[in-house]
Amino acid sequence: MGKAACFYAVEGVDGSGKSGIVTCILAHLTNQGIPAIATREPGGTPQGERIRALLLSGADDAWDQQSELLMMTAARVEHVRRVILPSLAQGISVVSDRYVGSTIAYQGAGRGMTDAYIRHLHKEAVGDVWPDLVVVLDLDPAIGLARSRQRLSAGAIDEGRFETLDVDFHRRIRQSYLDQARRDPSRHVVVDARGTPEEVRARAIDAIDAWRAGQAITPPRTS
Amino acid sequence: MGKAACFYAVEGVDGSGKSGIVTCILAHLTNQGIPAIATREPGGTPQGERIRALLLSGADDAWDQQSELLMMTAARVEHVRRVILPSLAQGISVVSDRYVGSTIAYQGAGRGMTDAYIRHLHKEAVGDVWPDLVVVLDLDPAIGLARSRQRLSAGAIDEGRFETLDVDFHRRIRQSYLDQARRDPSRHVVVDARGTPEEVRARAIDAIDAWRAGQAITPPRTS
Repeated sequence: MGKAACFYAVEGVDGSGKSGIVTCILAHLTNQGIPAIATREPGGTPQGERIRALLLSGADDAWDQQSELLMMTAARVEHVRRVILPSLAQGISVVSDRYVGSTIAYQGAGRGMTDAYIRHLHKEAVGDVWPDLVVVLDLDPAIGLARSRQRLSAGAIDEGRFETLDVDFHRRIRQSYLDQARRDPSRHVVVDARGTPEEVRARAIDAIDAWRAGQAITPPRTS
Repeated sequence: MGKAACFYAVEGVDGSGKSGIVTCILAHLTNQGIPAIATREPGGTPQGERIRALLLSGADDAWDQQSELLMMTAARVEHVRRVILPSLAQGISVVSDRYVGSTIAYQGAGRGMTDAYIRHLHKEAVGDVWPDLVVVLDLDPAIGLARSRQRLSAGAIDEGRFETLDVDFHRRIRQSYLDQARRDPSRHVVVDARGTPEEVRARAIDAIDAWRAGQAITPPRTS
């Protein structure tokens, strides 16, 4: 087979269960002897984690949307150059909790910046680096927000900033992920994120296995 | 007369005496009853100062040049939206220690990113906001570095990062400032920054007064 290392991104509205799915994909790959690492955005490097701390603390208007976009992209530059590309080059698969799809969704559909500008900035700054597969956890944001608030009240406070925004904002995020999947179906799977964590994990693993089986019989993309 | 508030930027290689000239321009304006504030980049806002702290600490390779450019620009977005434009709108002149000319010089000529990309990013993210007058303090960077090192050894350590780079790098910075002045002479004055602080201040004030006298008899620019 000799399938090269893959870059997976897990995307979805707040509370859709991304971090649990990242862990589960990682376990699924390593259980098959496929070396893989889990990482996240914004963050994944000491530099990116500092940017994450700046962005996710404070009130919703603490940063202009333009500087928010630039700093998210700066964190991604560091993540790609220092973690993602070096890992892939060593044959290690990468599973990232969020990637540029989140920027297209949150800064684009959410805050109204153009898709073209976000993609142009990505290509200029980060390079033409896109995931092999994006797992979109699809969920009504009202359910996701309820889950998130439960988690916040349990003490996980560093994601407070986006999660205080209103449900309409999050509906645009959800729609953006579905639009991204529709525009580029070969690189996306949409997973129903309703139900128990176990149910969602089973669907995500099935979708990934089906995608990998498809990859094995089609010529590798050079991306 | 009714001359509207002006936006001044002071630029120059490290050790060229920018902060002293900023203070001196501010005193010169306020002594004439012209309200003015002094500010600096990267920084000038709580957000920008946090970015400054991230960028200027650590080793020279702590940030990729792409993320460095994005973060400098993010700090500038905050500075323009929160300080520069509101001040000008209230009739308060602004004197900034560095502005986008530094990015064109350091990230462009210094680190090799294209001028076109830096200017495009500036227009997209910051907007079409340029100084009314850029005061370029022109100095052989070897002299500037010697002055800076003296200052660093006296305990001012937060600017250590760029100043450890080599003299060739700083020669490209100097040349970039001269090129910027040549391309857009109506918005630049080049001041010889050799000699004592008093001599340089006198030259800078003369150049600004001459520029302001010229402004008074020409129609005001929009922009």
